[in-house]
Amino acid sequence: MTRNLFLSVLALSLCMSLSAQKTCYYDAASLNVIGKAIPTSKDYTRIDTSAYKFNDAVIEEFACHSTGLAVLFATDSPFIKARWQTSPKNASENMTAIAQKGLDLYIRQDGEWVFAGVGRPDMDKGPDYACHEGTIVKSMALGRKECILYLPLYDRLDSLFIGVEEGSYIEPLENPFRHRIVVKGSSVTHGLAASRPGMSYAARFGRDNGLYCFNLGFSGKSKLQKEYAEYLADIEADAFIFDAFSNPSAEIIHENFDTFVDIIRAAHPDVPLIFMQTERRESRNFDTWREDFEARKQAAAEQEIRDRMKTDRHIYFLPSDDFLGDEHIATSDGSHPTDLGFTYMLESISPKILKILRKYGIK
Amino acid sequence: MTRNLFLSVLALSLCMSLSAQKTCYYDAASLNVIGKAIPTSKDYTRIDTSAYKFNDAVIEEFACHSTGLAVLFATDSPFIKARWQTSPKNASENMTAIAQKGLDLYIRQDGEWVFAGVGRPDMDKGPDYACHEGTIVKSMALGRKECILYLPLYDRLDSLFIGVEEGSYIEPLENPFRHRIVVKGSSVTHGLAASRPGMSYAARFGRDNGLYCFNLGFSGKSKLQKEYAEYLADIEADAFIFDAFSNPSAEIIHENFDTFVDIIRAAHPDVPLIFMQTERRESRNFDTWREDFEARKQAAAEQEIRDRMKTDRHIYFLPSDDFLGDEHIATSDGSHPTDLGFTYMLESISPKILKILRKYGIK
Repeated sequence: MTRNLFLSVLALSLCMSLSAQKTCYYDAASLNVIGKAIPTSKDYTRIDTSAYKFNDAVIEEFACHSTGLAVLFATDSPFIKARWQTSPKNASENMTAIAQKGLDLYIRQDGEWVFAGVGRPDMDKGPDYACHEGTIVKSMALGRKECILYLPLYDRLDSLFIGVEEGSYIEPLENPFRHRIVVKGSSVTHGLAASRPGMSYAARFGRDNGLYCFNLGFSGKSKLQKEYAEYLADIEADAFIFDAFSNPSAEIIHENFDTFVDIIRAAHPDVPLIFMQTERRESRNFDTWREDFEARKQAAAEQEIRDRMKTDRHIYFLPSDDFLGDEHIATSDGSHPTDLGFTYMLESISPKILKILRKYGIK
Repeated sequence: MTRNLFLSVLALSLCMSLSAQKTCYYDAASLNVIGKAIPTSKDYTRIDTSAYKFNDAVIEEFACHSTGLAVLFATDSPFIKARWQTSPKNASENMTAIAQKGLDLYIRQDGEWVFAGVGRPDMDKGPDYACHEGTIVKSMALGRKECILYLPLYDRLDSLFIGVEEGSYIEPLENPFRHRIVVKGSSVTHGLAASRPGMSYAARFGRDNGLYCFNLGFSGKSKLQKEYAEYLADIEADAFIFDAFSNPSAEIIHENFDTFVDIIRAAHPDVPLIFMQTERRESRNFDTWREDFEARKQAAAEQEIRDRMKTDRHIYFLPSDDFLGDEHIATSDGSHPTDLGFTYMLESISPKILKILRKYGIK
């Protein structure tokens, strides 16, 4: 809190001299922060846990992650720097710290978002260090740059200041993404093994297709709980995409599925609900217990959806046979798709999802 | 040292009771450790720094990494566990801890190496913790499993014990890889942003094609130094693949290239030297200084090789235009290919390298 205050005062009052170029830092919250399905009181929190209760400390911690959030701005500065503060938590062993608590910048070029650079969290100072600072891109040509900066995928973000050259402008950029697509899921959706915050499949699907996607991935905690359904019911949404069957067992799928859909349907009677089958995990390759558990889970998921599709013509099912390719090289640990896994997955799901969305005028 | 001794005594004398199954640990050094281009005195060290001097503390640290090393063994145990000790260094921000200091297991199935599981380093205990323990795969069907376990890509490995069920056998497995291919390079070769130790491009090229590859990637330190050339000259090798131009500037390439090749050629007059152009880094996208630096570097590399090719018919050059695809999504930080980047790169280089190797009877 003291540190936040210090950084705010710094941003308001101080331009730093670094070599010949002076850097002025601006509070990113004063720019255009996108990616919240419902507004929250804190700048970089996905879900307001004072308004929505989940009765689970881990879910409430994840709700405060900046997953899927991004800052839109334009500047004519020749460089972009950042100072930001996260939790002091170390990165998980199956993900990069850049994905967990770093920043990922893209600049619009001929209508396409092109990767420009990353904000590297400072891990050398040990796991108790939470203040990061770095140059994301430098030596850029003159002129206006329209930027999207993706925020940490798997950590909370307590503050963020963007540094530009003294005398340059920095201003909010209008959200260019269309419609409102909710992506609700597990660690796969959370983007655990993406290499950078903008490489989760939800971010890529949105960026590649110009669609406004909200990332509601909750690692290990996405079990069709009614508390999520109640939150989803409150969202103004044009479509829902679900990675809903990665975390629950077959038994929990049977127990929770109908109530979960009932709650959403009461609020959104005609909105398409697109359910992806969970991926075929690579941890099944030799583990017979896992093979049985996963096969039963997938069967339960397909059965529940097929049943529901008989009476609900706005529910869709996407098989997952080709989500991870066939070479067994698409995960960081047997479960979590890497950028390669997400590439395979997007090659499979993007055309199918876009075809469904077009039926609803979403394009 | 005390800890090593303790673990050794443990392995010799103790079988641990864990639930119903008892686990016996065996020193992996007593199995078949492959991947050293020249034998070393320490079990898991790539290059013996008492025999080869590099006049650079970082290079000598990297020489002691277990990069590219793997343990070959067969067992009929239903599970495989591991206890291992690395340095206490935290993972770099652009790589996973599994790649840096973890383990990566594949089991042979119908002649193919299929991913089976990872050994996850324990990062929860903080950056000063260096002893790791975990189950890599469990609940396997009865019968013999032929295994290759890749060792940490970017750390030293002080000890490794493999745990199998009491009463099961574990024995060395013969090295199935043919010929001797040296892969010398930078952080790209070191495998920095691979998600797991077995996903570096050198490991994948070897595994996919049945070729015995030695990984001599040295992150940031691969500048055509003569000390490397002297080491390479001593290796009994059938071919050399070089990612030689990622680290040096244009000036250093011009200064060092001929001497570097001269030293190797004196020992290996007819062995194919396959030089890859360095990748087009994504950090060039908007950074004009980087664009100029990299373009001059690539031009210098191509000029030196083309010149040399006029008098040496066993030198080959592989352009890199398609190494990272064209979507700007193949690196974790603008420089380091992820599993996706390595997939693009292998799609490009594998057919070209295999075609060259066939001319020398290497297949």
